Amino acid sequence: MQQVCRYGLGTTLSASFADALRLTKEAFQKQGFGTLSEIDVQKALQEKLGLHREPYTILGMCNPHLASQAIEAEPHVGLLLPCNVLVAQRGANVEVSAQDPREMVEITQNPNLKPIAEEAYQRIVAALTQLGSYSP
Amino acid sequence: MQQVCRYGLGTTLSASFADALRLTKEAFQKQGFGTLSEIDVQKALQEKLGLHREPYTILGMCNPHLASQAIEAEPHVGLLLPCNVLVAQRGANVEVSAQDPREMVEITQNPNLKPIAEEAYQRIVAALTQLGSYSP
Repeated sequence: MQQVCRYGLGTTLSASFADALRLTKEAFQKQGFGTLSEIDVQKALQEKLGLHREPYTILGMCNPHLASQAIEAEPHVGLLLPCNVLVAQRGANVEVSAQDPREMVEITQNPNLKPIAEEAYQRIVAALTQLGSYSP
Repeated sequence: MQQVCRYGLGTTLSASFADALRLTKEAFQKQGFGTLSEIDVQKALQEKLGLHREPYTILGMCNPHLASQAIEAEPHVGLLLPCNVLVAQRGANVEVSAQDPREMVEITQNPNLKPIAEEAYQRIVAALTQLGSYSP
């Protein structure tokens, strides 16, 4: 697992896109995150604009315990939820990356979110680490 | 329309929750944003944790032209998409708020996103202003 950009952590899988999507959902489920939304950006851009892009899917992942605590602490935090996980084709491999939930604390400037974001971070790291150990 | 929190703009509607949800989708559609995801947080927390909360729905809104340009400029921007619009019961009224897309520029530190975020911002302001003028 590594920092893939300023605001995200990720890992690369040597797997088909469909397998990477399934493995990602399973690894996050194990950490208590359900998949609440799934946006197939490739399909949307094809349908709406006729553009051809490589597979690029945004999963909206939510741990209900953490989400509930976060909404209690910060009523507008729904603007920053769910936690996005991006599954994107990169050449022959698939990159799985996740938004660093600690950004929430920076954006809201609400210190009460800190322990919640920290727990989400640890669970996301665990999911990505599991994915990173996958071998076909 | 007003700043409802550090990272969001919003307006309050005197409407039923179902009407507010429908009007929100229509106002954003008029600005080129389709509804790509809809997360009923009230229902999810009821089902998963048995918690009772007021209606609280997160809409994932996407303008395909702007999203496509954003992904070209910043491959990991999918971690920050789609643009969240929160529809939340507040007493007898319903608050509709949207994430300020200009935050994307701050988070990514990518100046190429600036004109895209600015256009998204103008369109979101237009949608919220239209919603703010609603009278039942």
